[in-house]
Amino acid sequence: MATRILLSEDEIPRQWYNLAADLPTPLQPPLGPDGKPVSPEMLEPIFPHALIEQEVSSKRWIDIPEEIRQYLARWRPTPLHRAYGLEKALGTPARIYYKNESVSPAGSHKPNTAIAQAYYNKKEGVKRLTTETGAGQWGSALAFSCALVGLECKVFMVRISFDQKPYRKVMMQTWGAECVASPSPDTKAGRDFLAKDPDTPGSLAIAISEAVEAAVTDPKHETKYSLGSVLNHVLLHQTVIGLETKKQLEKAGEKKADVVIGCVGGGSNFAGFAFPFVYDKIAGAQIEIIPVEPTSCPTLTKGPFVYDIGDASGMTPLLAMYSLGHNFIPAPIHAGGLRYHGMAPLVSQATVEGLLAPRAIPQLECFESALLFARTEGIIVAPETSHAIASTIQEAKRAKEEGKEKVIVFNLSGHGLLDLKGYQSYMAGELTDYVLPEEIIRKNLEAIKDFPKPSLAKTGKW
Amino acid sequence: MATRILLSEDEIPRQWYNLAADLPTPLQPPLGPDGKPVSPEMLEPIFPHALIEQEVSSKRWIDIPEEIRQYLARWRPTPLHRAYGLEKALGTPARIYYKNESVSPAGSHKPNTAIAQAYYNKKEGVKRLTTETGAGQWGSALAFSCALVGLECKVFMVRISFDQKPYRKVMMQTWGAECVASPSPDTKAGRDFLAKDPDTPGSLAIAISEAVEAAVTDPKHETKYSLGSVLNHVLLHQTVIGLETKKQLEKAGEKKADVVIGCVGGGSNFAGFAFPFVYDKIAGAQIEIIPVEPTSCPTLTKGPFVYDIGDASGMTPLLAMYSLGHNFIPAPIHAGGLRYHGMAPLVSQATVEGLLAPRAIPQLECFESALLFARTEGIIVAPETSHAIASTIQEAKRAKEEGKEKVIVFNLSGHGLLDLKGYQSYMAGELTDYVLPEEIIRKNLEAIKDFPKPSLAKTGKW
Repeated sequence: MATRILLSEDEIPRQWYNLAADLPTPLQPPLGPDGKPVSPEMLEPIFPHALIEQEVSSKRWIDIPEEIRQYLARWRPTPLHRAYGLEKALGTPARIYYKNESVSPAGSHKPNTAIAQAYYNKKEGVKRLTTETGAGQWGSALAFSCALVGLECKVFMVRISFDQKPYRKVMMQTWGAECVASPSPDTKAGRDFLAKDPDTPGSLAIAISEAVEAAVTDPKHETKYSLGSVLNHVLLHQTVIGLETKKQLEKAGEKKADVVIGCVGGGSNFAGFAFPFVYDKIAGAQIEIIPVEPTSCPTLTKGPFVYDIGDASGMTPLLAMYSLGHNFIPAPIHAGGLRYHGMAPLVSQATVEGLLAPRAIPQLECFESALLFARTEGIIVAPETSHAIASTIQEAKRAKEEGKEKVIVFNLSGHGLLDLKGYQSYMAGELTDYVLPEEIIRKNLEAIKDFPKPSLAKTGKW
Repeated sequence: MATRILLSEDEIPRQWYNLAADLPTPLQPPLGPDGKPVSPEMLEPIFPHALIEQEVSSKRWIDIPEEIRQYLARWRPTPLHRAYGLEKALGTPARIYYKNESVSPAGSHKPNTAIAQAYYNKKEGVKRLTTETGAGQWGSALAFSCALVGLECKVFMVRISFDQKPYRKVMMQTWGAECVASPSPDTKAGRDFLAKDPDTPGSLAIAISEAVEAAVTDPKHETKYSLGSVLNHVLLHQTVIGLETKKQLEKAGEKKADVVIGCVGGGSNFAGFAFPFVYDKIAGAQIEIIPVEPTSCPTLTKGPFVYDIGDASGMTPLLAMYSLGHNFIPAPIHAGGLRYHGMAPLVSQATVEGLLAPRAIPQLECFESALLFARTEGIIVAPETSHAIASTIQEAKRAKEEGKEKVIVFNLSGHGLLDLKGYQSYMAGELTDYVLPEEIIRKNLEAIKDFPKPSLAKTGKW
């Protein structure tokens, strides 16, 4: 009755899985301001060649350099846990498993790509990376990775999180990174937004504008930009999560997963965990794959599939994705990592294709679920992760009602030790639910009504 | 070039190691207020039988119940890391390893005994545990363990830490425990101390008084007390750390450790890590074993070996130990877990015997070392652990000067993600060093000058 299913260092995957190779319809290309597809060359001021190559690759399997595997071996393979305690508390016939990405030194799945990005940049002579961070998980992960690989790092942190989570900044500084609140006076984009609204809580989109600008305007041309989610290469690097999980389920004697669940903000932890299962689903397996988002930022469940920019001021190309509009200013919920206006193109297109069954859950149910999880499984999860747990509990209860022995697997994307304020507010009864009103979405979408539209025929197979 | 040396679940030790069986001179007994040895029966209002039996046992190996091994398997065996990054930064010929106890869900080594204590109490029908906590690591660990095992839990937290670390309290509450600042109005001891000094920062000794009182005065007799360090049975439970480490060093191809280092407050992480090596030393191996303490609480390096009470008001027996006097009010350094006036009798007696080579290090050197460690090894450690790192760096530099290929092993007792305020203050240049003046020690010791004296002849062998 092993609680954890472990793999050896040798079992860290040797290749990443690229869903772009298997999507029933080809991925809609990113577009430039002129409406024409962005060429790989246009990305060169921002990203190193190796990452651009991965971004546009349609190869199914992409080799992981041995040096990256060595870095990952500092905490990978991560354990897969059987949730006996939670199962017992719910009295469910379902067998619940969770992949524990919280064991990385930065506390989440984010270093899986941060290490890879730092590695490729370093290899191509880059000296410094800039990035944005919402809740701080990504900024911490990149600071950690830059320290190990040997790069400088500057993080633009969404102001509301910067103020709510002062210790995230300390964490990044401890790893040697610089961290400023966004919008900041350090960039033109930041100064413009501050001029419009000096008290803005900021947004991930604004912070992205700043970080991209800071990279491309480096007079020494030694700086590149690094993104923690959304893009194809980022999702690619995260697939070690799902690939390990499948191996571990096999070791646990499970023939297949019936329900696969991950929380979804920009899409990276979800994709990394779920895409190897989407691969099985495309091949014919019966699997329900659920991305879970907050009702306050219901990108996949309420947004349309459109072309929109990835930031707030057009520093990025147009991406074909579900979007609430790039002017979306999210409510200050505690799951700061799930407040992005858009969604990874790969996750978006898999949703259009009917391969995914997205769901939105309000924050009180999420915190209630996280509390039950802490008291039965012993791990205090990040508010983002609590969305995956809430959905898991819904599914486990459904399995009980149906009397079915389902196998439910979710991704525990990060721990909540830097997010205890959320738990404190929840236990003090200070939190409320928030559902983003449809009229706000409609209003935000006005700004993109003249953008090109993606052309994509659903295959209607799933 | 594996960075981590891992063990399988099956390799979790099946027996704890009890140093009391091997100490060259028999352990000095705890004494009652009358100066006579305390009988096991006298401990019954406080502890369950199984733990009392372990407390007084002189058996070398004590079986670990399978159920406890199952609980430990939620995070054990913990990894042993080779510190390639730190070695490179120091240019040392030493091979540095660290045992990573920070991977437990509570973030430190403390659950190793918390789980065992909760288990034995539950088995004997106890419904509720009380305890004290300094920095909060122990209170968190007991709250975590009580949640898993199914017990209520009340934690008296030293006021200075309660105020400095509000999120530790939230962590305990998330796991369902009650946490109050000590001294508290909830006990007679607490009320007395508050009457004397309403603004007292509190001390571990005061908090112990409160927790013991709260247990023994439960009118329903369903409450017992739980201690996170100092006592023999607590140290016993921690020996899984050192036992695993020895197996891992063997797997790494190391014939022996030359230097073994742990930070020391009450003594539990140090003992758990080091005692299995002390066993080898008694058997003739050449090993330098270093407990490291802060210069602001130099119990082993400046205190005398005496009989003193373990708390502040005499709720506990007299213990033969190094002590700064039970009235000692520590300076508010950040390594809150290293501020206890006394020292575990087993660690004390091993020191008297010359088996250990204690060392005190000031906090600036410790934080500087922790920063170097974070930037080379990627892990942000607890301020307590930073003492072990500072000593490791001293030893690695010495190995470089001497041109010796030593094997240095230290215990990474916990992560610092709930202690980032200390890092913040350090990086802002706000911290200073503090050496406890000898006259304060002399003055504190006045209070115990009439206590019985331990009779112990050094064997002079080490």
